[in-house]
Amino acid sequence: MKWPFPYKLDHIGIAVSSLKDGGKLYQALGFTQVHVEDVVGEGVKVGTYELANEARIELLEPLGENSPVAKFLEKRGPGVHHICLRVEGLAKILQQLKTAGIRLVYDEPRPGAHGCMISFIHPASAGGVLIELSEKKSKGAP
Amino acid sequence: MKWPFPYKLDHIGIAVSSLKDGGKLYQALGFTQVHVEDVVGEGVKVGTYELANEARIELLEPLGENSPVAKFLEKRGPGVHHICLRVEGLAKILQQLKTAGIRLVYDEPRPGAHGCMISFIHPASAGGVLIELSEKKSKGAP
Repeated sequence: MKWPFPYKLDHIGIAVSSLKDGGKLYQALGFTQVHVEDVVGEGVKVGTYELANEARIELLEPLGENSPVAKFLEKRGPGVHHICLRVEGLAKILQQLKTAGIRLVYDEPRPGAHGCMISFIHPASAGGVLIELSEKKSKGAP
Repeated sequence: MKWPFPYKLDHIGIAVSSLKDGGKLYQALGFTQVHVEDVVGEGVKVGTYELANEARIELLEPLGENSPVAKFLEKRGPGVHHICLRVEGLAKILQQLKTAGIRLVYDEPRPGAHGCMISFIHPASAGGVLIELSEKKSKGAP
Protein backbone atom coordinates (compact mmCIF):
# COMPACT_ATOMS: atom_id res chain seq x y z
CA MET A 1 0.00 0.00 0.00
CA LYS A 2 1.38 3.39 -0.96
CA TRP A 3 1.54 6.50 1.21
CA PRO A 4 -0.63 8.45 1.92
CA PHE A 5 -2.86 5.88 3.62
CA PRO A 6 -6.56 6.58 3.83
CA TYR A 7 -6.28 6.25 7.61
CA LYS A 8 -6.90 9.31 9.76
CA LEU A 9 -6.69 9.56 13.53
CA ASP A 10 -10.40 10.22 14.05
CA HIS A 11 -10.85 10.43 17.80
CA ILE A 12 -9.80 9.30 21.24
CA GLY A 13 -12.56 7.86 23.42
CA ILE A 14 -12.08 8.67 27.11
CA ALA A 15 -14.17 6.98 29.81
CA VAL A 16 -15.56 9.45 32.37
CA SER A 17 -18.07 9.13 35.21
CA SER A 18 -19.87 12.23 33.94
CA LEU A 19 -19.52 14.42 30.86
CA LYS A 20 -19.80 17.48 33.10
CA ASP A 21 -16.89 16.68 35.43
CA GLY A 22 -14.81 15.01 32.70
CA GLY A 23 -15.11 18.08 30.50
CA LYS A 24 -13.69 20.58 33.01
CA LEU A 25 -10.06 20.15 31.92
CA TYR A 26 -10.92 20.55 28.24
CA GLN A 27 -12.93 23.65 29.05
CA ALA A 28 -9.92 25.01 30.99
CA LEU A 29 -7.91 24.46 27.79
CA GLY A 30 -10.47 26.56 25.90
CA PHE A 31 -12.39 23.74 24.14
CA THR A 32 -16.16 23.84 23.64
CA GLN A 33 -18.26 20.66 23.67
CA VAL A 34 -19.82 20.69 20.22
CA HIS A 35 -22.03 17.60 20.25
CA VAL A 36 -23.73 15.26 22.72
CA GLU A 37 -25.25 11.98 21.54
CA ASP A 38 -26.57 8.80 23.13
CA VAL A 39 -25.15 5.75 21.32
CA VAL A 40 -27.56 3.21 22.76
CA GLY A 41 -25.97 0.23 20.98
CA GLU A 42 -22.68 0.88 22.84
CA GLY A 43 -24.37 2.00 26.08
CA VAL A 44 -22.73 5.45 26.14
CA LYS A 45 -23.52 9.15 26.12
CA VAL A 46 -20.81 10.77 23.97
CA GLY A 47 -19.63 14.37 24.48
CA THR A 48 -17.50 15.59 21.57
CA TYR A 49 -14.74 18.22 21.56
CA GLU A 50 -13.36 19.03 18.10
CA LEU A 51 -9.74 19.68 17.20
CA ALA A 52 -8.32 21.54 14.23
CA ASN A 53 -7.16 18.53 12.15
CA GLU A 54 -10.49 16.70 11.63
CA ALA A 55 -9.94 14.88 14.92
CA ARG A 56 -11.98 14.78 18.11
CA ILE A 57 -11.87 13.96 21.78
CA GLU A 58 -14.95 11.98 22.76
CA LEU A 59 -15.82 11.72 26.43
CA LEU A 60 -17.83 8.56 27.17
CA GLU A 61 -20.32 8.51 30.04
CA PRO A 62 -21.98 5.13 30.68
CA LEU A 63 -25.74 5.00 30.03
CA GLY A 64 -26.29 2.25 32.61
CA GLU A 65 -24.58 -0.25 34.91
CA ASN A 66 -24.28 -2.84 32.16
CA SER A 67 -22.56 -0.48 29.73
CA PRO A 68 -19.06 -1.67 28.71
CA VAL A 69 -17.82 1.78 29.75
CA ALA A 70 -19.35 1.32 33.24
CA LYS A 71 -17.41 -1.94 33.54
CA PHE A 72 -14.24 -0.24 32.28
CA LEU A 73 -14.61 2.52 34.91
CA GLU A 74 -15.23 -0.05 37.65
CA LYS A 75 -12.14 -2.06 36.67
CA ARG A 76 -9.64 0.65 35.72
CA GLY A 77 -11.10 4.05 36.63
CA PRO A 78 -11.36 6.93 34.17
CA GLY A 79 -8.92 7.10 31.25
CA VAL A 80 -8.41 6.33 27.57
CA HIS A 81 -11.01 3.71 26.56
CA HIS A 82 -10.25 3.42 22.84
CA ILE A 83 -8.68 5.14 19.87
CA CYS A 84 -10.42 5.43 16.52
CA LEU A 85 -8.97 5.31 13.01
CA ARG A 86 -11.09 6.60 10.12
CA VAL A 87 -10.94 4.18 7.20
CA GLU A 88 -12.37 3.64 3.75
CA GLY A 89 -13.65 0.21 2.76
CA LEU A 90 -14.32 -1.00 6.31
CA ALA A 91 -16.03 -4.29 5.40
CA LYS A 92 -13.07 -5.33 3.25
CA ILE A 93 -10.52 -4.29 5.91
CA LEU A 94 -12.37 -6.33 8.56
CA GLN A 95 -12.35 -9.35 6.27
CA GLN A 96 -8.58 -8.97 5.63
CA LEU A 97 -7.83 -8.55 9.34
CA LYS A 98 -9.93 -11.60 10.22
CA THR A 99 -8.08 -13.63 7.57
CA ALA A 100 -4.79 -12.42 9.10
CA GLY A 101 -5.89 -13.82 12.48
CA ILE A 102 -6.59 -10.42 14.05
CA ARG A 103 -9.34 -10.65 16.70
CA LEU A 104 -12.29 -8.34 16.01
CA VAL A 105 -15.13 -7.29 18.33
CA TYR A 106 -17.64 -7.27 15.44
CA ASP A 107 -16.93 -9.15 12.21
CA GLU A 108 -19.29 -6.89 10.25
CA PRO A 109 -19.62 -3.07 10.31
CA ARG A 110 -22.38 -1.78 12.60
CA PRO A 111 -23.79 1.69 13.37
CA GLY A 112 -21.77 3.95 15.71
CA ALA A 113 -21.93 7.66 16.66
CA HIS A 114 -22.10 10.48 14.06
CA GLY A 115 -23.88 8.16 11.58
CA CYS A 116 -20.71 6.11 11.00
CA MET A 117 -20.28 2.37 10.50
CA ILE A 118 -17.80 0.87 12.96
CA SER A 119 -16.08 -2.17 14.38
CA PHE A 120 -13.23 -2.66 16.87
CA ILE A 121 -9.95 -4.54 16.87
CA HIS A 122 -9.75 -6.40 20.18
CA PRO A 123 -6.99 -5.22 22.57
CA ALA A 124 -5.64 -8.79 22.60
CA SER A 125 -4.63 -8.30 18.94
CA ALA A 126 -3.53 -4.65 19.31
CA GLY A 127 -1.01 -4.46 22.15
CA GLY A 128 -3.60 -3.71 24.83
CA VAL A 129 -5.33 -0.94 22.85
CA LEU A 130 -9.00 -1.10 21.84
CA ILE A 131 -8.93 0.27 18.27
CA GLU A 132 -12.16 1.42 16.65
CA LEU A 133 -12.28 1.46 12.86
CA SER A 134 -14.88 3.90 11.56
CA GLU A 135 -16.19 4.68 8.09
CA LYS A 136 -18.45 7.56 7.12
CA LYS A 137 -21.62 6.37 5.45
CA SER A 138 -21.78 7.75 1.92
CA LYS A 139 -24.22 10.60 1.45
CA GLY A 140 -27.65 9.41 0.43
CA ALA A 141 -27.02 5.90 1.77
CA PRO A 142 -30.00 4.35 3.52
CA MET B 1 -11.22 31.86 22.69
CA LYS B 2 -12.79 31.62 19.25
CA TRP B 3 -13.13 28.53 17.10
CA PRO B 4 -11.03 27.17 15.40
CA PHE B 5 -8.69 26.43 18.29
CA PRO B 6 -5.01 26.06 17.54
CA TYR B 7 -5.15 22.60 19.12
CA LYS B 8 -4.53 19.57 16.93
CA LEU B 9 -4.60 15.94 17.95
CA ASP B 10 -0.90 15.32 17.35
CA HIS B 11 -0.29 11.73 18.38
CA ILE B 12 -1.16 8.84 20.63
CA GLY B 13 1.73 7.36 22.61
CA ILE B 14 1.40 3.60 23.09
CA ALA B 15 3.65 1.69 25.49
CA VAL B 16 5.08 -1.50 23.97
CA SER B 17 7.70 -3.99 25.10
CA SER B 18 9.36 -3.78 21.69
CA LEU B 19 8.81 -1.63 18.61
CA LYS B 20 9.09 -4.76 16.47
CA ASP B 21 6.30 -6.76 18.12
CA GLY B 22 4.16 -3.71 18.87
CA GLY B 23 4.27 -2.66 15.24
CA LYS B 24 2.89 -5.91 13.79
CA LEU B 25 -0.77 -4.85 13.98
CA TYR B 26 -0.07 -1.48 12.33
CA GLN B 27 1.87 -3.22 9.59
CA ALA B 28 -1.09 -5.62 9.10
CA LEU B 29 -3.22 -2.48 8.63
CA GLY B 30 -0.80 -1.31 5.92
CA PHE B 31 1.12 1.34 7.89
CA THR B 32 4.85 1.92 7.48
CA GLN B 33 7.06 3.01 10.38
CA VAL B 34 8.47 6.31 9.14
CA HIS B 35 10.76 7.38 11.97
CA VAL B 36 12.65 5.89 14.91
CA GLU B 37 14.21 8.14 17.53
CA ASP B 38 15.67 7.76 21.01
CA VAL B 39 14.29 10.44 23.34
CA VAL B 40 16.82 10.01 26.11
CA GLY B 41 15.24 12.62 28.38
CA GLU B 42 12.03 10.58 28.53
CA GLY B 43 13.81 7.20 28.49
CA VAL B 44 12.08 5.93 25.33
CA LYS B 45 12.76 4.72 21.80
CA VAL B 46 9.92 6.12 19.69
CA GLY B 47 8.63 4.40 16.52
CA THR B 48 6.35 6.66 14.49
CA TYR B 49 3.51 5.71 12.14
CA GLU B 50 1.98 8.65 10.28
CA LEU B 51 -1.71 9.17 9.54
CA ALA B 52 -3.30 11.32 6.84
CA ASN B 53 -4.46 14.24 9.03
CA GLU B 54 -1.11 15.45 10.43
CA ALA B 55 -1.46 12.93 13.26
CA ARG B 56 0.72 10.02 14.33
CA ILE B 57 0.79 6.84 16.34
CA GLU B 58 3.98 6.67 18.39
CA LEU B 59 5.01 3.32 19.84
CA LEU B 60 7.14 3.76 22.97
CA GLU B 61 9.75 1.16 23.87
CA PRO B 62 11.56 1.73 27.18
CA LEU B 63 15.29 2.50 26.93
CA GLY B 64 16.00 1.00 30.36
CA GLU B 65 14.49 -0.37 33.56
CA ASN B 66 14.14 3.08 35.09
CA SER B 67 12.25 4.50 32.13
CA PRO B 68 8.76 5.77 33.06
CA VAL B 69 7.45 3.59 30.21
CA ALA B 70 9.13 0.52 31.75
CA LYS B 71 7.31 1.27 35.00
CA PHE B 72 4.05 1.79 33.11
CA LEU B 73 4.45 -1.60 31.38
CA GLU B 74 5.26 -3.30 34.69
CA LYS B 75 2.20 -1.80 36.38
CA ARG B 76 -0.43 -1.90 33.61
CA GLY B 77 0.97 -3.84 30.66
CA PRO B 78 1.03 -2.48 27.12
CA GLY B 79 -1.54 0.12 26.10
CA VAL B 80 -2.16 3.84 25.61
CA HIS B 81 0.45 5.75 27.63
CA HIS B 82 -0.47 9.33 26.69
CA ILE B 83 -2.20 11.50 24.14
CA CYS B 84 -0.62 14.61 22.67
CA LEU B 85 -2.21 17.91 21.67
CA ARG B 86 -0.26 20.26 19.42
CA VAL B 87 -0.47 23.82 20.70
CA GLU B 88 0.84 27.29 20.00
CA GLY B 89 2.16 29.42 22.85
CA LEU B 90 3.03 26.50 25.14
CA ALA B 91 4.79 28.52 27.86
CA LYS B 92 1.77 30.79 28.25
CA ILE B 93 -0.69 27.87 28.26
CA LEU B 94 1.34 26.13 30.99
CA GLN B 95 1.30 29.30 33.06
CA GLN B 96 -2.49 29.63 32.66
CA LEU B 97 -3.10 25.98 33.54
CA LYS B 98 -0.88 26.24 36.62
CA THR B 99 -2.76 29.36 37.73
CA ALA B 100 -6.02 27.41 37.23
CA GLY B 101 -4.74 24.73 39.64
CA ILE B 102 -4.06 22.13 36.92
CA ARG B 103 -1.21 19.80 37.90
CA LEU B 104 1.66 19.76 35.39
CA VAL B 105 4.56 17.33 35.04
CA TYR B 106 6.94 20.11 33.94
CA ASP B 107 6.14 23.75 34.68
CA GLU B 108 8.35 24.92 31.80
CA PRO B 109 8.57 23.61 28.20
CA ARG B 110 11.38 21.10 27.64
CA PRO B 111 12.71 19.24 24.55
CA GLY B 112 10.70 16.22 23.30
CA ALA B 113 10.80 14.09 20.13
CA HIS B 114 10.78 15.58 16.59
CA GLY B 115 12.52 18.74 17.86
CA CYS B 116 9.40 19.89 19.73
CA MET B 117 9.05 21.60 23.10
CA ILE B 118 6.73 19.73 25.44
CA SER B 119 5.17 19.34 28.86
CA PHE B 120 2.46 17.07 30.29
CA ILE B 121 -0.78 17.61 32.19
CA HIS B 122 -0.77 15.11 35.06
CA PRO B 123 -3.45 12.37 34.86
CA ALA B 124 -4.70 13.51 38.29
CA SER B 125 -5.87 16.75 36.65
CA ALA B 126 -7.07 15.15 33.39
CA GLY B 127 -9.46 12.34 34.27
CA GLY B 128 -6.80 9.64 34.35
CA VAL B 129 -5.24 10.64 31.02
CA LEU B 130 -1.62 11.76 30.66
CA ILE B 131 -1.88 14.65 28.18
CA GLU B 132 1.25 15.88 26.42
CA LEU B 133 1.21 19.44 25.11
CA SER B 134 3.67 19.93 22.25
CA GLU B 135 4.80 22.97 20.31
CA LYS B 136 6.93 23.00 17.17
CA LYS B 137 10.06 25.06 17.60
CA SER B 138 10.01 27.95 15.17
CA LYS B 139 12.39 27.54 12.23
CA GLY B 140 15.77 29.04 12.93
CA ALA B 141 15.27 28.90 16.69
CA PRO B 142 18.36 27.90 18.64
